[in-house]
Amino acid sequence: MIGIGRTGWVTKKDPVCGPLDAICRPIALAPCTSDVHTVWSGALGDRHDMILGHEAVGEVVEVGSLVKDFKAGDKVLVPAITPDWNSLEAQAGYQMHSGGMLAGWKFSNFKDGVFAELFHVNDADGNLAHLPDDMDPVTACMLSDMVPTGFHGVELADVQFGDSVVVVGIGPVGLMAVAGTALRGASRIYAVGSRPNCVRLAREYGATDTIDYHDGDLADQILEKTHGKGVDRVVIAGGNVDTFAQAIRMLKPGGKIGNVNYLGEGDYVKIPRVEWGCGMSHKVIAGGLMPGGRLRMEKLASLVEVGRLDPSKLVTHRFEGLESVEPALMLMKDKPKDLIKPVVTIQY
Amino acid sequence: MIGIGRTGWVTKKDPVCGPLDAICRPIALAPCTSDVHTVWSGALGDRHDMILGHEAVGEVVEVGSLVKDFKAGDKVLVPAITPDWNSLEAQAGYQMHSGGMLAGWKFSNFKDGVFAELFHVNDADGNLAHLPDDMDPVTACMLSDMVPTGFHGVELADVQFGDSVVVVGIGPVGLMAVAGTALRGASRIYAVGSRPNCVRLAREYGATDTIDYHDGDLADQILEKTHGKGVDRVVIAGGNVDTFAQAIRMLKPGGKIGNVNYLGEGDYVKIPRVEWGCGMSHKVIAGGLMPGGRLRMEKLASLVEVGRLDPSKLVTHRFEGLESVEPALMLMKDKPKDLIKPVVTIQY
Amino acid sequence: MIGIGRTGWVTKKDPVCGPLDAICRPIALAPCTSDVHTVWSGALGDRHDMILGHEAVGEVVEVGSLVKDFKAGDKVLVPAITPDWNSLEAQAGYQMHSGGMLAGWKFSNFKDGVFAELFHVNDADGNLAHLPDDMDPVTACMLSDMVPTGFHGVELADVQFGDSVVVVGIGPVGLMAVAGTALRGASRIYAVGSRPNCVRLAREYGATDTIDYHDGDLADQILEKTHGKGVDRVVIAGGNVDTFAQAIRMLKPGGKIGNVNYLGEGDYVKIPRVEWGCGMSHKVIAGGLMPGGRLRMEKLASLVEVGRLDPSKLVTHRFEGLESVEPALMLMKDKPKDLIKPVVTIQY
Amino acid sequence: MIGIGRTGWVTKKDPVCGPLDAICRPIALAPCTSDVHTVWSGALGDRHDMILGHEAVGEVVEVGSLVKDFKAGDKVLVPAITPDWNSLEAQAGYQMHSGGMLAGWKFSNFKDGVFAELFHVNDADGNLAHLPDDMDPVTACMLSDMVPTGFHGVELADVQFGDSVVVVGIGPVGLMAVAGTALRGASRIYAVGSRPNCVRLAREYGATDTIDYHDGDLADQILEKTHGKGVDRVVIAGGNVDTFAQAIRMLKPGGKIGNVNYLGEGDYVKIPRVEWGCGMSHKVIAGGLMPGGRLRMEKLASLVEVGRLDPSKLVTHRFEGLESVEPALMLMKDKPKDLIKPVVTIQY
Repeated sequence: MIGIGRTGWVTKKDPVCGPLDAICRPIALAPCTSDVHTVWSGALGDRHDMILGHEAVGEVVEVGSLVKDFKAGDKVLVPAITPDWNSLEAQAGYQMHSGGMLAGWKFSNFKDGVFAELFHVNDADGNLAHLPDDMDPVTACMLSDMVPTGFHGVELADVQFGDSVVVVGIGPVGLMAVAGTALRGASRIYAVGSRPNCVRLAREYGATDTIDYHDGDLADQILEKTHGKGVDRVVIAGGNVDTFAQAIRMLKPGGKIGNVNYLGEGDYVKIPRVEWGCGMSHKVIAGGLMPGGRLRMEKLASLVEVGRLDPSKLVTHRFEGLESVEPALMLMKDKPKDLIKPVVTIQY
Repeated sequence: MIGIGRTGWVTKKDPVCGPLDAICRPIALAPCTSDVHTVWSGALGDRHDMILGHEAVGEVVEVGSLVKDFKAGDKVLVPAITPDWNSLEAQAGYQMHSGGMLAGWKFSNFKDGVFAELFHVNDADGNLAHLPDDMDPVTACMLSDMVPTGFHGVELADVQFGDSVVVVGIGPVGLMAVAGTALRGASRIYAVGSRPNCVRLAREYGATDTIDYHDGDLADQILEKTHGKGVDRVVIAGGNVDTFAQAIRMLKPGGKIGNVNYLGEGDYVKIPRVEWGCGMSHKVIAGGLMPGGRLRMEKLASLVEVGRLDPSKLVTHRFEGLESVEPALMLMKDKPKDLIKPVVTIQY
Repeated sequence: MIGIGRTGWVTKKDPVCGPLDAICRPIALAPCTSDVHTVWSGALGDRHDMILGHEAVGEVVEVGSLVKDFKAGDKVLVPAITPDWNSLEAQAGYQMHSGGMLAGWKFSNFKDGVFAELFHVNDADGNLAHLPDDMDPVTACMLSDMVPTGFHGVELADVQFGDSVVVVGIGPVGLMAVAGTALRGASRIYAVGSRPNCVRLAREYGATDTIDYHDGDLADQILEKTHGKGVDRVVIAGGNVDTFAQAIRMLKPGGKIGNVNYLGEGDYVKIPRVEWGCGMSHKVIAGGLMPGGRLRMEKLASLVEVGRLDPSKLVTHRFEGLESVEPALMLMKDKPKDLIKPVVTIQY
Repeated sequence: MIGIGRTGWVTKKDPVCGPLDAICRPIALAPCTSDVHTVWSGALGDRHDMILGHEAVGEVVEVGSLVKDFKAGDKVLVPAITPDWNSLEAQAGYQMHSGGMLAGWKFSNFKDGVFAELFHVNDADGNLAHLPDDMDPVTACMLSDMVPTGFHGVELADVQFGDSVVVVGIGPVGLMAVAGTALRGASRIYAVGSRPNCVRLAREYGATDTIDYHDGDLADQILEKTHGKGVDRVVIAGGNVDTFAQAIRMLKPGGKIGNVNYLGEGDYVKIPRVEWGCGMSHKVIAGGLMPGGRLRMEKLASLVEVGRLDPSKLVTHRFEGLESVEPALMLMKDKPKDLIKPVVTIQY
């Protein structure tokens, strides 16, 4: 990212490795919708000559003197969120906000991202995880952001055995939210989206019903399908600030919204007063950035290892070579019909 | 309530006692701001010849054949919320929504209230509690709604040891929220209000700081007092739909809002996108009607019995005789400066 | 049950239907290990001429005057636990202990069970659920006790995404605990048992590893498999009072035990002091009777309806006719190698 | 500590300050019962020439190059538990077990303690807190261990508004558990102990009843006082492995035990099977080491600052000068009747 609306390659000095840190080179990389927002919508404000990218599998090139569990040559999972674990926010249980709201998100936000020959990881022992021996780096690359973000929506919505759940949005994060909802024991899962390949995948990942917002108001459709009762939980992984009003309408009293959709535009999320029970409905509204760090990576990777989750189905386009990051990013920007997620692999 | 904007006395048939129910006569009664909203703002829609009132201490006159723990002559605490305990909503943990959103609230909402010679209580064993021998009915009358509503705000905001908390609104519910916040182990408590007697009581109930919204934007004042860091929790017990935008601004990431203010007007509660971290801040928004029923009454009454809570300080005006309900209600409508809560006692 | 150690058929008066209640006749019945314990171990103390059985699908024959949602002819799921929903315990969230510890368990404990021509259900609206149209009563019969008990172990152990979990015991409850653990998002699931058909089913239900206690100390085996680290959670669905000492040893600090095994013998559950961190390990020990009631039945049934759970695999032996309850119970007592669960269907 | 049963002064090299660490000198020190156990009971096994002590207020003498928020000359609160915040255990929410069970406890356990001219603190930014300007170091010294441990018992027992709670043991930790129980909104608090000054303080800190175990079986006394119903929670801050059997007996179904008593002796904690509902009672047994670190210190200190908590009442004996640590420790060992807690201040 050269500036808002402009991308290109820049030459920078090699990153410096602090005593707790690691320097890695990428093995697999994936552009993210938020990279597109960062560049072309200026979602984070202006950034100059900042390297993009926060989804990667890498190989450790160098570690700091205090790093205990990683060494050069190790292949590693790299989470999009790399907290400062001793911060007050992390101590309070909100590692993704370590140092300030959203500040656990460092790559391609406050510092250079992973679309580079070398990238820097703060607190290697706390934030990297070993790539399991038998895991394809392309699959593993989905563990940086898509899986943990989608699954966090499920956690925020607090899905329980037998719940009925709406998942709004079935891009890659939404599809992982569908998978996570099924894996958390929901019964009926209503997936909202329209692109045919995503609809098909949503069913494979566990959706029992699919809803197309072109067929009418979302909340109306859900209320009709549930005989006016509504659902127990809504996971929001797509849409915009106006999606919440529909979500409130389709929820039962005592229901919960878990939002993991980055809201890039609009002044306000508007909660309809009457449907929110005049403030008395116990319809809880929660939303949050994914938790990152090593333990989270290890836990989610273990779900892939035992075969309980297969995020590789998200990957529709594959590229080879670091220079392919640019066309992959452009593909993400242009969003052709058949795209879900592109991945770039780099061989040395 | 004869219709919107009109009150008066109506003559009705005696209520009928079902097998699980009780018929009571009032010993102490208190009008509530929501009675005022019901009549003069039409907050619940039009109601005709509906008896108002949902704050009462009573004496049992008759019980149904299946009632086990109460008998005629027993003096009882009566909660404002009297759930159907076998409903699906109650089974899910949301008794106040038994039968539908807010439908656990029956008195002066779906059925006649307590400002009557006799009133009907559904599920006596589940919803009444014995008035402790040594408890003044005037004090006890605050347990119907003021204490459980204020305390529920504290529960919704999930106050923990050492938290910094803002309580918005220091009418009678807000004052109980202050007391509950202190009793839950918060450290710094910022009470927001301006009426001198309420400000004084807020400090007695545990506020460490008081904030007057006439002195400038609320969130600005809190952020200045906290050196820009904000607070851990906000309990909303006053204000209106616009209060939430300020609450979001003054919260730390990971903070929680607990709303117990009935929002009578406005189309939307507006959550400011940027301050809400673009949906990623983990600032949770919760709001709900107070839990009612017998256990809740017994637990809150026990706090008064052991001297941990003194809600009698709320009572600024006392009346005698059922006919005094009308002037007490008018007083509540007119809100003179020195009013916090009026109570009417009835002797037989 | 005629007395401890003796069974037979007794003639009793028809049960009387109270205003909230229902009288049902059985469509499908299953004996439970606890019926065996009740009769031949005297686990509940002496009982005379008490009808056994608490797992049933039934048809409503009569309902009380206050019952709203059920009528004669309705086919219904009947939970083993039928709480008094307005009790203080249920209000506190512990419906299974309504009226006293374990007292939500009424069938074949405090009152006659379901192995009868007619049986009585307290609070029909609160405790029955409609049998879904397309659900086989044999499958549905597993929803009375096997599914909710096994799943409750998973809830008590508080299984989270990516957790490693040991399930001790793979009888029918343990197998449902395995299914629930997988459905809750655990990754590695170690199922402990030895009978070949159970081991096979455990793998079908989601176990990644099976452990035979004949191969050595359980905790030693788990610690070896986890390189000394132990696991995140243990669900106990078999074994005896001594199982807990092993469970504590195999748990990580911060781990949780969820017990749903009825401990019929032994004076004490012994927690090894040193492995429990001298009381400081945050290894939580929880155990509890399954929650019953209508909502729970509906939620678990919905998991079967959408195909997320298939409890019919548990049923290894099928009988026809009420008189077959006796051989089915004897089969349960004798536990042949190939038995998991017998079901008796009754046609009219 | 020179070896088991032997204490004395040893000369050691100055501790070395790593890049994240701090070196401090003590301003106030307090010996703890666990120091006594360590030396005279050998509770941690044999230790040679290990410096004792983990309760201190200090002054920073040196900080590492990566420390941001502290500098030489700063006066600081020092928690007894100083976690490695990037460890997997801390990421899982169990910072006190960072690196292994109980391994967040470093001072006088795995490394030299604070009874020294200089002591080393790992991760200064994560584990120290600034001493508030107006706080007496003697009071502040109670924040290292007594307050956080006592309050953690209350958190583990999950005390809610209006709960009835037994606190077993009213030594300094138990007294803080009483204070925390009151501050968390319990109503009736039964404090168990016999020493007159402790009993008096227990009442000042909020106990409504005091129970002397010399007057008969504890559980019997509690059950009598509660008319056979038992209590909602039990905080264990004294007694031994046999205390749990009594705690189980006095708990209601659904009740919780929060243990913070270090169990130094005995093979097993024995849970009585029948009173534990044959494993089905939902009486949860939890116990854990206090959480340490900076945020916790700041939060608890804020309770003292606003006057909600006064731990200075615990301090019955005061000494001056580092050399007084030895007589203070001996006092702790000998436990005269009037002792609650001794503190040594050191002036430079």
